[in-house]
Amino acid sequence: MGQERKMLWSGRFAQGAADETLAFTSSLAVDRRLARYDILGSLAHARMLARQGVIAPEDGERIVDGLKKLYAQAESGALAIDPKLEDIHSNVELLLTSMIEDAGARLHTGRSRNDQVATDLRMWQRDAVLETMEAIYELEHVLMERASDNVEVIMPGFTHVQHAQPISLAHHLMAHFQRLARDAERFAQCYRRTNVSPLGSAALAGTTFNIDRLYTADMLAFDAPCANSLDGVSDRDFVAEYLFAASLCAVHLSSMCEELVYWSSPEFGFVDIDDAHSTGSSIMPQKKNPDVAELTRGRAGAAIGDLVNMLCTLKSLPLSYNRDLQEDKAALFACHDRTVSCLRLAAAMVAAMRFDKERMLAATRDGFLNATDLADYLVTKGLPFRRAHEAVGAAVRYCIEQGKRLEELTLDELRSFSELVEEDVFSVLPVERCVLRRMSVGGTSPNVIPMQFSQGMSALRKQSEMFQNERARLRSAYQRLLDRGTPNGKSLV
Amino acid sequence: MGQERKMLWSGRFAQGAADETLAFTSSLAVDRRLARYDILGSLAHARMLARQGVIAPEDGERIVDGLKKLYAQAESGALAIDPKLEDIHSNVELLLTSMIEDAGARLHTGRSRNDQVATDLRMWQRDAVLETMEAIYELEHVLMERASDNVEVIMPGFTHVQHAQPISLAHHLMAHFQRLARDAERFAQCYRRTNVSPLGSAALAGTTFNIDRLYTADMLAFDAPCANSLDGVSDRDFVAEYLFAASLCAVHLSSMCEELVYWSSPEFGFVDIDDAHSTGSSIMPQKKNPDVAELTRGRAGAAIGDLVNMLCTLKSLPLSYNRDLQEDKAALFACHDRTVSCLRLAAAMVAAMRFDKERMLAATRDGFLNATDLADYLVTKGLPFRRAHEAVGAAVRYCIEQGKRLEELTLDELRSFSELVEEDVFSVLPVERCVLRRMSVGGTSPNVIPMQFSQGMSALRKQSEMFQNERARLRSAYQRLLDRGTPNGKSLV
Amino acid sequence: MGQERKMLWSGRFAQGAADETLAFTSSLAVDRRLARYDILGSLAHARMLARQGVIAPEDGERIVDGLKKLYAQAESGALAIDPKLEDIHSNVELLLTSMIEDAGARLHTGRSRNDQVATDLRMWQRDAVLETMEAIYELEHVLMERASDNVEVIMPGFTHVQHAQPISLAHHLMAHFQRLARDAERFAQCYRRTNVSPLGSAALAGTTFNIDRLYTADMLAFDAPCANSLDGVSDRDFVAEYLFAASLCAVHLSSMCEELVYWSSPEFGFVDIDDAHSTGSSIMPQKKNPDVAELTRGRAGAAIGDLVNMLCTLKSLPLSYNRDLQEDKAALFACHDRTVSCLRLAAAMVAAMRFDKERMLAATRDGFLNATDLADYLVTKGLPFRRAHEAVGAAVRYCIEQGKRLEELTLDELRSFSELVEEDVFSVLPVERCVLRRMSVGGTSPNVIPMQFSQGMSALRKQSEMFQNERARLRSAYQRLLDRGTPNGKSLV
Amino acid sequence: MGQERKMLWSGRFAQGAADETLAFTSSLAVDRRLARYDILGSLAHARMLARQGVIAPEDGERIVDGLKKLYAQAESGALAIDPKLEDIHSNVELLLTSMIEDAGARLHTGRSRNDQVATDLRMWQRDAVLETMEAIYELEHVLMERASDNVEVIMPGFTHVQHAQPISLAHHLMAHFQRLARDAERFAQCYRRTNVSPLGSAALAGTTFNIDRLYTADMLAFDAPCANSLDGVSDRDFVAEYLFAASLCAVHLSSMCEELVYWSSPEFGFVDIDDAHSTGSSIMPQKKNPDVAELTRGRAGAAIGDLVNMLCTLKSLPLSYNRDLQEDKAALFACHDRTVSCLRLAAAMVAAMRFDKERMLAATRDGFLNATDLADYLVTKGLPFRRAHEAVGAAVRYCIEQGKRLEELTLDELRSFSELVEEDVFSVLPVERCVLRRMSVGGTSPNVIPMQFSQGMSALRKQSEMFQNERARLRSAYQRLLDRGTPNGKSLV
Repeated sequence: MGQERKMLWSGRFAQGAADETLAFTSSLAVDRRLARYDILGSLAHARMLARQGVIAPEDGERIVDGLKKLYAQAESGALAIDPKLEDIHSNVELLLTSMIEDAGARLHTGRSRNDQVATDLRMWQRDAVLETMEAIYELEHVLMERASDNVEVIMPGFTHVQHAQPISLAHHLMAHFQRLARDAERFAQCYRRTNVSPLGSAALAGTTFNIDRLYTADMLAFDAPCANSLDGVSDRDFVAEYLFAASLCAVHLSSMCEELVYWSSPEFGFVDIDDAHSTGSSIMPQKKNPDVAELTRGRAGAAIGDLVNMLCTLKSLPLSYNRDLQEDKAALFACHDRTVSCLRLAAAMVAAMRFDKERMLAATRDGFLNATDLADYLVTKGLPFRRAHEAVGAAVRYCIEQGKRLEELTLDELRSFSELVEEDVFSVLPVERCVLRRMSVGGTSPNVIPMQFSQGMSALRKQSEMFQNERARLRSAYQRLLDRGTPNGKSLV
Repeated sequence: MGQERKMLWSGRFAQGAADETLAFTSSLAVDRRLARYDILGSLAHARMLARQGVIAPEDGERIVDGLKKLYAQAESGALAIDPKLEDIHSNVELLLTSMIEDAGARLHTGRSRNDQVATDLRMWQRDAVLETMEAIYELEHVLMERASDNVEVIMPGFTHVQHAQPISLAHHLMAHFQRLARDAERFAQCYRRTNVSPLGSAALAGTTFNIDRLYTADMLAFDAPCANSLDGVSDRDFVAEYLFAASLCAVHLSSMCEELVYWSSPEFGFVDIDDAHSTGSSIMPQKKNPDVAELTRGRAGAAIGDLVNMLCTLKSLPLSYNRDLQEDKAALFACHDRTVSCLRLAAAMVAAMRFDKERMLAATRDGFLNATDLADYLVTKGLPFRRAHEAVGAAVRYCIEQGKRLEELTLDELRSFSELVEEDVFSVLPVERCVLRRMSVGGTSPNVIPMQFSQGMSALRKQSEMFQNERARLRSAYQRLLDRGTPNGKSLV
Repeated sequence: MGQERKMLWSGRFAQGAADETLAFTSSLAVDRRLARYDILGSLAHARMLARQGVIAPEDGERIVDGLKKLYAQAESGALAIDPKLEDIHSNVELLLTSMIEDAGARLHTGRSRNDQVATDLRMWQRDAVLETMEAIYELEHVLMERASDNVEVIMPGFTHVQHAQPISLAHHLMAHFQRLARDAERFAQCYRRTNVSPLGSAALAGTTFNIDRLYTADMLAFDAPCANSLDGVSDRDFVAEYLFAASLCAVHLSSMCEELVYWSSPEFGFVDIDDAHSTGSSIMPQKKNPDVAELTRGRAGAAIGDLVNMLCTLKSLPLSYNRDLQEDKAALFACHDRTVSCLRLAAAMVAAMRFDKERMLAATRDGFLNATDLADYLVTKGLPFRRAHEAVGAAVRYCIEQGKRLEELTLDELRSFSELVEEDVFSVLPVERCVLRRMSVGGTSPNVIPMQFSQGMSALRKQSEMFQNERARLRSAYQRLLDRGTPNGKSLV
Repeated sequence: MGQERKMLWSGRFAQGAADETLAFTSSLAVDRRLARYDILGSLAHARMLARQGVIAPEDGERIVDGLKKLYAQAESGALAIDPKLEDIHSNVELLLTSMIEDAGARLHTGRSRNDQVATDLRMWQRDAVLETMEAIYELEHVLMERASDNVEVIMPGFTHVQHAQPISLAHHLMAHFQRLARDAERFAQCYRRTNVSPLGSAALAGTTFNIDRLYTADMLAFDAPCANSLDGVSDRDFVAEYLFAASLCAVHLSSMCEELVYWSSPEFGFVDIDDAHSTGSSIMPQKKNPDVAELTRGRAGAAIGDLVNMLCTLKSLPLSYNRDLQEDKAALFACHDRTVSCLRLAAAMVAAMRFDKERMLAATRDGFLNATDLADYLVTKGLPFRRAHEAVGAAVRYCIEQGKRLEELTLDELRSFSELVEEDVFSVLPVERCVLRRMSVGGTSPNVIPMQFSQGMSALRKQSEMFQNERARLRSAYQRLLDRGTPNGKSLV
């Protein structure tokens, strides 16, 4: 039995929880990561209690001083965490109490672990979202840079993994950019829903003490306190939302990495992934494997698994706090670390890989990529599109039988499929012309791709402003919490 | 072999696809629901082609006239859909061609089914999001109404499904309101990312025809054309996002319904669900089962399943269009129908159910719900909270042994746990007082709950404005497409 | 209000359920598929009731006669299903009652819809499992046939989608065979856990009537009655198990189809999928897309989604029957239909597709597929493998710089990497030799592949015996239920 | 750059992988858990190589000696694992090589990490399955014990969380037993599919060396070598199957724990969970929360998430080994640890909790639990069941209006619903009688419940034999590998 351990709640119990129970229910291995936020949250809470006169000024001073010391220890990695305690919150409170005794025992006035852990987790997630956004930004940036350098490079555009129409490599890269830009948007919106303060919701119903929730929300740089205390302690929507945004982002990465895996195969040969992002085989001396791309692709499965985990855990759970909710953190932390490392490695890999432009261009010779252009040509000569499509289809079938390309047919051969064909047909068939002439908005022509760059640049600017400004805001709020004089009423505001 | 069927693409094939293949690949059973949007999209495309001079004015006129007739047929359910054709797009095009021949065969100029289906689906989803938002709105409205009528009703607040502290029933209901308000916000943001026009992306690379994508986007009430044509034909983020928002909303409903299932059990007896939302048993004559609540709870599983389906399908899929994407619609349509019907039934059920206020109040007598208040009392007398917690814990243990409630202890008994207890302790122990005094922002006191109502009302107003305005905007855009004179250049703008 | 509808349970209700409730809770659209099994189950139940003297012989006779008529109607599609009734069970019972009145009203003695639906569903699933096993069998058969014909065909073996070592095409095809053989095994084991009779569990607790559950189990060809009635009405493990087995099978198909999609691309060109299993493009006249392979790959997402749906629905559900369980059927039916059609189309596609053997062989020239063989050669000359690996790695790097293949190096060049190399090295480098010499058990050498065929044949034989025997057993049990004279005690056994 | 690190494959690379790449791709943090199995597998491989004459006897001796030393270090926790190496396999090989140089460098002859890791993982999973089966066994055992002691305890049986019919508590507990018995069966079948040896599949295609795969399979206690080497290195079905069996088992636990959470609420009060398996609140001094039950319920979400992770990762993955597969272990290890600890805590909790028999019995007074018995009574008097159901439904409605129980009605009142009622009706209405008379097979009557115990005992016996026998078999095989003299040909067999 775990009698030796000091729990925050032992008064009512005749007998302590079994050691196995404490091992089973402990969240310390996971939530020790919250130490920093727990101390900052307590700082805000203590300052508020003193300011409101709920605790005496001198108690407030001692608590704040104690917490500052603990914060310094946490930042330097010197916090003396006791593995026998059930969570990080107990650790911080007991370290404080052992330092300043009764004063520390007053810290938990008007709050509960229920609102405390929700506050800590939201603070953690704010940083996590901003870090994720920055990692997305980096990959977007690399993609756009590589696109800018490859506007004129022609490759086969694929649908159904079949050659469809020739496109600019830049256009292909920018399609991946667009996906990431939406991811960034989703994370930014998730940030706002994360940035709400549950502190002061107490156990579930608010508190009888005269606390000031707007003040603590403000001190911790939250946009507002939550409107309902039951919701405050039980809402984990923000976690599910992070996991979804991360899952979709991981799916986007899996899509790009699937391409890189195939593009670096001997069959495609479009890309040479740098040695720095490849590994070899223990048995086959010649192997150079695109491991980074494969692992990034594979890890999308884990993100989706984390999301499913969270949604399943929340399903059918009544109000308000239930211990099932403890499981939120392991999934969230793992997903965040994975998402950021995948994004960063992807950025490094994309930045360093080499495109084989000759091979890409050569590939456009197979698969009748200019067939649509021939059909379009017939339309400009007056044939309805559906008829033009049929005529070119027949021409392609003829080519397959003859082992020829469309551009290798003679004028007579071409005219056998439609009398509308004239000499000028040969000017529309080269793949360079096919690419150049797709000038519709959002099309692949080098003439219109720059529109994507300027739109993309402004999206990037907006994103980086967002995460930089928010970071500065959080940093200065935290600094204020740590710097300001001990709380004796007025001096705090 | 399927030779008799007319496919849009048969020219190149020596031999048709097998009947089994056509049955296997056909999406008609699902996408016939897109008929209306397909015709409207074609109307915009045809008007644009004529306006840009890509097709002749008289062809434009005939196409528009034909499409108007098909639209009328679709609206009246009289569209002669041929089950042997592979999708709704083929049906519409072939019906048109059979009506106006060559002119119809010109409609597909400068577009592909790839951008067409993406456009149709986004148009469908716009309506779906607005309908979902309205259904959420209705349930929120009912919850707030029931809350307003039950501010003074006291019930046990639960954590861990144990009695925690007494709360107002209104407070509990408003916690569910808060969740739905976040759902509405997520759907509104999903709407904006849905409302982007892929039309004119053509197969994947844009087109060589001089099309005007801003014009069609505008005619169809899209916010903008998409920026990259590869992304235009392959992006299904908006579908995944709808499915996630619906999953989280379904999880919220499952949580509320879990409560209603238990609350209507003999053990709880907090609620009597109306006969209108209950069914009986084939064998047990006495049974009245909360089937609506159970099915709503259970159907959250289907929503999560739909989301997983979509994310799995998208994972590792290279650019651009792949046939795997066809699977998006079945999951999306089913999820939407389910979400809306669950929300509507939940609203009706919550509106009609009866609360047993006496039973709720009686339940607050068990479980020492006022223990925190006693601890808080000791804090106001000067005891550090952590010590107060211990003292009250011991008092509770004593009560359990004695079979008493805290308020039944004598002053002497209470003082044996802390000498700080005085006569005034008895004024803090009644549950009514416990509720009343939790006046912190977001707390359960009837004094502060009205703040939630006013915040909630403004959220509701914002939501209803959003879906009503957008609906009006879509309606008038569609009307313009149908009403305006046949396209002969200038008259169109 | 739905007063006009006759429900099986209306006695206790002052007021009927709302029309919307009935629409919301109705399972008829889904469970009408159970009609046949519902009638057979009722036949067994009625015969047993008569045999046990629970109902009078003449009532038994009339019920059996009535059910036989309904069975004939169901088989011919003429069953007059009333869409206003909530499920198929109500329909059958009310059709019977309208035919034979009071006698029909006695049918539900000693059973409940809870055990009835569980019985029907297990009967349905038995057939579903057998059909799935047969479809797996067909695909396995095709794979083995194609493998037998292509033992000597050499292709690059892939790891990480990079060329690894040359292998026989047959070996590759047989790897897919192995996966399917495990699938078949899982389905066969699922069948046994499905084949347990809940009939007679009644609502949840068994019944007071003197029923004979072993008799009904036997009449319906179940292996045994379930051991616990609460479990009998609430167990849906068998459904989850089907969905898992189907998900893993779908994942296997997705893997094979992923290969076929890429193998039929111009870059690989290993395979030409028959026109019968391809479709074209509405805009690109040249396109021939591997739609069947793509849809089969994509539909694995739906299977996984169905599985998640079911597991989520079951999670946290208390004993015994809860209405949430109704949701089992939609997922199960859809998953079954999809699994079987995917398997069948895959079999047809694999049977008809053409391998480009020259292209496959040519592909083995790139990527140093014989590097391991060179290392192995050095080992046989006495070099430790790890050193041999290093030496060959260096040789490969040299080749890449020189643009040569290993077999194109001179003896001197080769000896510069290891002095152990001698003239006989050139006999180990041809890819044909590499394949031939991998004669370890389970290896790719044409000398050992036939072992896989004989093992595979015996697995196939075992599978087909299983599904054919079980089918015969079910068929004869059902026939007995329909044929045997009306139940007057002895004549029934 | 990571030049300083010695990789097993660096020969071919001009430049090492980046440090970030090695951190990103390293599996050491996870797979160090495989050390023991990796060494055992190498022992078998080395003995076989020597026996087959592939390596010299003296090299074999030195390798075996070296591996024995490493095994002893691994068992005592003293293995000097180098965190800079990418996986446990590199660590073991390099430790060996540093000990015995060239001899160690010969160990990797005829195998690859691809088959090595698959072998290690299957060996690990064998132990994992057996441990899981033992933990299931323990919980089953506890359930049956508690059931045996509570056969006569009467409680309300629930459907739809409404009172349905009275049942024996033992019957309820045995329903959970049945679920676990199926779980055990699924794990046992998963064990057989796990127990197949991939060793000797080498990279993907087998090897040119004269290895003996049957010998190594036998030495490692595998049932057989796998039949196809491509399948051998890429098959992860067994992992998915473990995760599914664990997910369904976790769902079963979630169901039982959901009940315990509610049963220990003040409203139900059926159960008092021991202090040893409860924890308290940081703010509410009176709280005793069923945390173990809640966490076990919640952790089912994680199991389902792990399963989804694995299925998603496998989906669309071509043959043969791809690096995505590395992700299998983290999910599997976590799921196993969680499953076993949840099962063990559940067993301890169920063993220690106290049932409140009076409260359970008292609960049977509400909800007309004997209504079915009254209907059955009318049937025995000759009324068709459907009519009897209606009559009793009306009686229940009358009782609700009158605030009475069925057994409180007078004979006249009862007769007003059916004239068939006679004086003997009162003997069928007591709940004790209702329970006693449900004697159908699998029913709740104390007269038939013992059948469940004897069936259950024989299932338990079979399970424990399985895991004990297999454990003994593995243990003696491993001992043989460690004990037997150094390999000099004959002495090995």
